[in-house]
Amino acid sequence: MPSRFELANAIRALSMDAVQKANSGHPGAPMGMADIAEVLWNDYLVHNPADPQWPNRDRFVLSNGHGSMLLYSLLHLTGYELGLEELQNFRQLHAKTAGHPEYGYAPGIETTTGPLGQGLANAVGMALAERTLAAQFNRPGHSVVDHHTWCFVGDGCLMEGISHEVASLAGTQGLGKLITFYDDNGISIDGEVEGWFTDDTAKRFEAYGWHVVPNVDGHKPEEIKAAIELARSHDDKPSLIICKTIIGFGAPNKQGKEECHGAALGDEEVAAARQQLDWPHAPFHVPEEIYQGWDATERGQSRQADWDERFARYAEAFPEEARELQRRLKGELPAALTSEAMVEEAQAKGESVASRKASLACLNELGPQLPELLGGSADLAPSNLTFWKGAQAISPAEPGGNYLHYGVREFGMAAIMNGIALHGGFVPYGATFLIFSEYMRNAVRMAALMNQQAIHVFTHDSIGLGEDGPTHQPIEQLTALRSTPNLATWRPCDAVETAAAWNAALKRRSGPTALIFSRQGLPHQARSKQQLADIQRGGYILKDSEGTPELILIATGSEIGLAMDAAARLEAEGRAVRVVSMPSTDAFDRQDAAYRQQVLPAEVGNRIAVEAGHRDFWYKYVGLEGRILGMDTFGESAPAGDLFKHFGFTVDNLVNEAEQLLDDAED
Amino acid sequence: MPSRFELANAIRALSMDAVQKANSGHPGAPMGMADIAEVLWNDYLVHNPADPQWPNRDRFVLSNGHGSMLLYSLLHLTGYELGLEELQNFRQLHAKTAGHPEYGYAPGIETTTGPLGQGLANAVGMALAERTLAAQFNRPGHSVVDHHTWCFVGDGCLMEGISHEVASLAGTQGLGKLITFYDDNGISIDGEVEGWFTDDTAKRFEAYGWHVVPNVDGHKPEEIKAAIELARSHDDKPSLIICKTIIGFGAPNKQGKEECHGAALGDEEVAAARQQLDWPHAPFHVPEEIYQGWDATERGQSRQADWDERFARYAEAFPEEARELQRRLKGELPAALTSEAMVEEAQAKGESVASRKASLACLNELGPQLPELLGGSADLAPSNLTFWKGAQAISPAEPGGNYLHYGVREFGMAAIMNGIALHGGFVPYGATFLIFSEYMRNAVRMAALMNQQAIHVFTHDSIGLGEDGPTHQPIEQLTALRSTPNLATWRPCDAVETAAAWNAALKRRSGPTALIFSRQGLPHQARSKQQLADIQRGGYILKDSEGTPELILIATGSEIGLAMDAAARLEAEGRAVRVVSMPSTDAFDRQDAAYRQQVLPAEVGNRIAVEAGHRDFWYKYVGLEGRILGMDTFGESAPAGDLFKHFGFTVDNLVNEAEQLLDDAED
Repeated sequence: MPSRFELANAIRALSMDAVQKANSGHPGAPMGMADIAEVLWNDYLVHNPADPQWPNRDRFVLSNGHGSMLLYSLLHLTGYELGLEELQNFRQLHAKTAGHPEYGYAPGIETTTGPLGQGLANAVGMALAERTLAAQFNRPGHSVVDHHTWCFVGDGCLMEGISHEVASLAGTQGLGKLITFYDDNGISIDGEVEGWFTDDTAKRFEAYGWHVVPNVDGHKPEEIKAAIELARSHDDKPSLIICKTIIGFGAPNKQGKEECHGAALGDEEVAAARQQLDWPHAPFHVPEEIYQGWDATERGQSRQADWDERFARYAEAFPEEARELQRRLKGELPAALTSEAMVEEAQAKGESVASRKASLACLNELGPQLPELLGGSADLAPSNLTFWKGAQAISPAEPGGNYLHYGVREFGMAAIMNGIALHGGFVPYGATFLIFSEYMRNAVRMAALMNQQAIHVFTHDSIGLGEDGPTHQPIEQLTALRSTPNLATWRPCDAVETAAAWNAALKRRSGPTALIFSRQGLPHQARSKQQLADIQRGGYILKDSEGTPELILIATGSEIGLAMDAAARLEAEGRAVRVVSMPSTDAFDRQDAAYRQQVLPAEVGNRIAVEAGHRDFWYKYVGLEGRILGMDTFGESAPAGDLFKHFGFTVDNLVNEAEQLLDDAED
Repeated sequence: MPSRFELANAIRALSMDAVQKANSGHPGAPMGMADIAEVLWNDYLVHNPADPQWPNRDRFVLSNGHGSMLLYSLLHLTGYELGLEELQNFRQLHAKTAGHPEYGYAPGIETTTGPLGQGLANAVGMALAERTLAAQFNRPGHSVVDHHTWCFVGDGCLMEGISHEVASLAGTQGLGKLITFYDDNGISIDGEVEGWFTDDTAKRFEAYGWHVVPNVDGHKPEEIKAAIELARSHDDKPSLIICKTIIGFGAPNKQGKEECHGAALGDEEVAAARQQLDWPHAPFHVPEEIYQGWDATERGQSRQADWDERFARYAEAFPEEARELQRRLKGELPAALTSEAMVEEAQAKGESVASRKASLACLNELGPQLPELLGGSADLAPSNLTFWKGAQAISPAEPGGNYLHYGVREFGMAAIMNGIALHGGFVPYGATFLIFSEYMRNAVRMAALMNQQAIHVFTHDSIGLGEDGPTHQPIEQLTALRSTPNLATWRPCDAVETAAAWNAALKRRSGPTALIFSRQGLPHQARSKQQLADIQRGGYILKDSEGTPELILIATGSEIGLAMDAAARLEAEGRAVRVVSMPSTDAFDRQDAAYRQQVLPAEVGNRIAVEAGHRDFWYKYVGLEGRILGMDTFGESAPAGDLFKHFGFTVDNLVNEAEQLLDDAED
C-alpha cells in the first residue's frame, strides 16, 4: 500500500511534469494542495468516475482554477476518462486539459474556473441547489438528493469582492453541506501577501456565520481528516477549513515563493523535486500501485448502485415525484408549457404596459407550470418585478422555496446562478437594473462560455428610467451584452415581444439570455399571424410600405413606438417606409440569408436605426450610408419624457433625420 | 439657539419636501442619517463653503448616494452656492441637484455616488491620497496636508463585494484618518435585511484591522459625538462607527419600513412628519435661526485662512516643495516632461517588443519625472509590468511611496484610483489583464462620467495571451471600452505607438484612458516624421499605395504586423493597398472630416478591418460592403501562434479575404 504522501506526490509529479512539458502553467497550487486533495478525494468525495453526470455525486470546485493540473491529476488518477496523453497535451489546442478547467472539456469538471472568486460562488450555487432540490423532493426515509459541495479557494479568491458577497449569503442561508478549503499559502503573484492581504480570515468568515476550522496543517493528512470530520458535523453552517500550506511543496528551491506559482519549475528544479519527494519515476510515469491506491471506479460504481436502489424505492413510493425529479434533472420543459400560447394571448389582449410589468405577467403565467424556476433579484424585486405571485423566499427555515433574495450582490447573484444551473434541476433567473449588469459582467460571460441556461432580467433599460440620472442610465451596456459570444439578448417593444422573449429564454438550454425591459410604459403594436411568428426570428417587418420601401427604420424596445409614429408621419408625406423591429439581433443574425435579405434588402441603403443606447452598434445594420439615432454621451437626471426630448428621441427629430437622409440620397 | 434636533430636522424637512415636489427620490436615508450628519458637519467637518476646492478640506463621501438630498441639504444649509431654488428643482433637467450626487454639478460634491459600494472605495482612495501626499510633502512642524475623510455607507454598500476589497486594503494600509459611518437601519429595497444580510459587521471590519465603534444610537448626538472622538483617537486604523438608525425617522407611518426608502412620502405623510418632528414651517422654508445654526461660512473662512498662513510659512521654509505641491494640486505636468520626445526616441530605437514591455520602458523614462504617478496592479505586477525601477510600495511604515500593491481586487483598485484622482495631487494608474476589466467595468465608467484622469493598463489583450485559455482571452472587451463615453482607448501596434499612447494618457486631464497592451512581441514599424506626428490622431496611414488605393486594411495592435505583411503580398500581386493603423478610434473620431476623409476616403469601399477582438465593432469603419477579420466566438487554450492560425489571423487568410473582396467588387 502506498503511503498518503506517495499518493499525493503523484499529483505533484504529474502537475510539475505537465507544466514543464507545456512550459506554461501553474505548478505551485497543485503541489501545495496535493495532500488536502488526497485526503478529500480518497476518503470523502462521493463520485463515480464512470458516470461524471451521476446526479447525486458530490460536487468539487477548484475556485483557484489556475491550479488546473491538480484537478486533471485527480481525474486521471481516480479513473475518469482522461488519459495520460491528455495530461501530456496540457494547454495545447483541442486538448481536454485546457489552461484552466473548462466545463465540458474533460469529464468531471464541474465548472469553468480561472476568474478568481467565481468558483466559490458557483459552489455556493451548487450547495443551494442541492438543499433546495432536497427540500422539494426528498421524503421521510427517502433522501434521493443528498450530497456535499467541496470547494478549494486561494488567497486570490478571498481577496476578490465576490467572495464577500457569496460567503455572506451562504452564511445567511446556512448551507451546511458546503465545505471550503482555504489554501493559506501566503503567496500571490506580487509576492508575499502580507503587504496587501492581512485579513483575519477566520474571524471574517465567523462574522458571516460560517463554521471555521482554523490552523490546519495542510500537509498533515490526519489534521486534514480531523478538520473534515468537524466540518461535516456542522450541518447548519457552511464550513471553512483554513489550511496552512507551502506553495510548490516539494520543489526544494522554489517552494514557498512566488516563483513556483505561475511558471514551469525548469528541468533542474523538477529533478530536484523528484529527489526531495523521493519520487524516482520518469516524467508522467505513475507506478501501478499508486494508480491502485487512487482508483475510485469500483467504490464509485457501488456508491451509485446504492443510490440507484434508493432511487428505485423512492420511485415506487413516490412515482410522480420521481418522474418530476427526473424531468427536472434532464432539463426538459413540461410538455404542456404554455409559453408559446402566451405570446398569442398577449397579442390578443393588446395591453400597453412597461415591459418589466409584462415580464411579471409572464412569470405569473409560467411560474406555476415551472417549479424549476429559481428566481431572484439583487435587492430590486419591487423594481425588477421578479417576485411573482407564487414566489416563495428560500431560507434555512423554508429551504424548499423558489426565490432568492440575493441582497445587493449582483456579481455574486450571477455566479451563484451559474452554480445552480450547473448543478441541475433548476432554471435560474435573476434581476437587477441594466446598468448594474456591469457589476456582474464576467459571470454572465462565464454562463455563455459554459453553455449554461441562466436568465438575466435587466430592467430600467435606458434614459427612460428618468430621475436616477447618469449613474443609473445604461448607454453602452446593450452593446456589451450583444457582443458577448453565446449570450442571447432581447429588448422587446411591448408585452407581446416580452412574452416571446421569455419563451425564447426558457427554450434556450444552451446558454444564457439577457432580457432587457423598460421601466416606462410601452404601446402595444398590431401584428398579423405571420408577424407574430416572426418575432422569434429576432428581427421582422413590423410595418411595411406599399411596394419597395425607400427607407427602413430599425428600432428596438421603447423606440419602436417612436419609429412607428415617425413612419406614419413620413407615410402621410408620401414616403414608403418600412419599420423593422429587432428585439434580438443575435437571433436575427442566425436567420438564413434569404430571410435577412427579405427584412433588410441590400438594395435599400436608406436606413435609420433608432435606439436609446450607444449608436455605434448599429453600423452593423445601417452601414456607412445609413443614419443612427442613438447616444454617445452619458445621460442626465430628469423625468423620462424630458430626457427623450433632450437627447433627440422625438418624432420630429426622427422625421427630420429621415427627410435629410432621403433628400441626400435623391441629390 | 436651535437644538441639535431642530437643526437635524431642517435636513429632514428639506429632503422630504424636495422628494415630494419631484415626486421621485429617496427620503428614507436623509431622514435616518440627519442626526449623524448634523453632529459631523457642525462639530467636526473642516471645510469652507466659500471655497469648495480648498485642498486641505476634509472630504465627505455619501456612498449611499441615493440619499442625495442629505448632501444637498447640508451644502445648502452650511452656505455653499446651492440655493433653495436648486433644492426645489431636485431631479430636474440641468439642475445641480441630480437624482444622485454628480461630481461637478453642485459645489461640494466630492464624488459621484449611486452605484453602491464605490463611494466607500473612493473614500479609501482619498484617505490614501491624503496620507501619501502628507508623507511626501509635510515637514517637521509643517503639516500642510492634513485632513480627514468621512464616509457614509448603507446596508447596500456593505453587501457589495467592493466593500470587502477596499475595506480589507484600507485595514492593511492602516488609513487612520478614514472614518466611516454605517447607517445600520435594517432595511433595504426588498424589505428587512435579516432575510439576506446577517453579517456581524463589527466583527467583519475588525477582521480587516479596522477600529470599530459598535452600537451607537444614530439619533443621539452625544453618542455620535463620543463615537467620533473615539474614532479620531485611533490614528493607525480606519474607523467604522456603526449607528443604529430608523430609516425615514420622523415619518410616523412609514419610518422603519421599506416604503420610505425610495419614493416620495406623499402629502399626507409629509404633513404628519411635520407634526411628529414639530417642524411647523412651510415646505422649503427654513427659519433664519436654523440657517444661522448651520452656517459654516465664517468658521470655514477662518479655517482656510489659518491654513493659508501655515502654507505661507511652509513655502518660506521649503519653497521648492511648496511650488511642487502647488503644481501637483493644480494637476499641471512638469514643463520639461519628455513624453513627446519619447515617441521620437522609440521610433529611432526601432525595437520590436511586446507593448507591455514597451509600456514598462515608458514608465521607466517618465516615472522619475512624474512623482505624481501613483501606480499599481491588481496582483499582476510581474505580468502587467507596472512596477518600474523607481516604484516604491506604499505601506503604513513607508507611506510616502508611489506604488500600491492592490491585491487581487480589480474593482476596488479602479474605484480607489477614482478617489485618488478626485483628491488631487496624483495621476493614478492601475493594471490588470484586459479580460478582468470586466471585474471593474463600472468604476472605469465612473471615472469617465466624472471626467477624472485615471490610467488603466490592460495587458494580455487578445487570444495572443495563449495557454491561459478562453476565461482569460478578451473578445468583446475592446468594444465595451470603446463604447464607453469619455473613455479614451489605445491599442498600440509597437513600442512607438505605445509611447504615443502613454503621452496621450498623461496629457488627458479630463477623463480616463485605457491602454491596451500585448503579452507577445510586436514588430517595429517604420514611419516618416508626419506619420509619427499623426499617431496622436488615433488613426493614420501607416503604409500607402501609389495613387488611390483599391483596398484599405485597417488594423490595430498585434494585427498591424499581419496587415503589413498581407499588404506587401498583395502589392507584389499588383494591388494598390493602404494600411491604416487605428490605435485609438475615439481620437480618430474626433478629427475633422477632412482628415478622416484623407485617411479613409469615402470612395474607397473596399476595406478590411483586422483585429483579434469582436468583429462587430468594425462595421463603423468598413460598412456593409467591407469585410472584417475578427472574432465572434470565445478563444481556446493553446500557444498563441497556434491560436492565431486556428482563428484565421494569418497572412494567407487575410490575403485571401482581400482577393475575394476585390474580385467581388470587380464583378
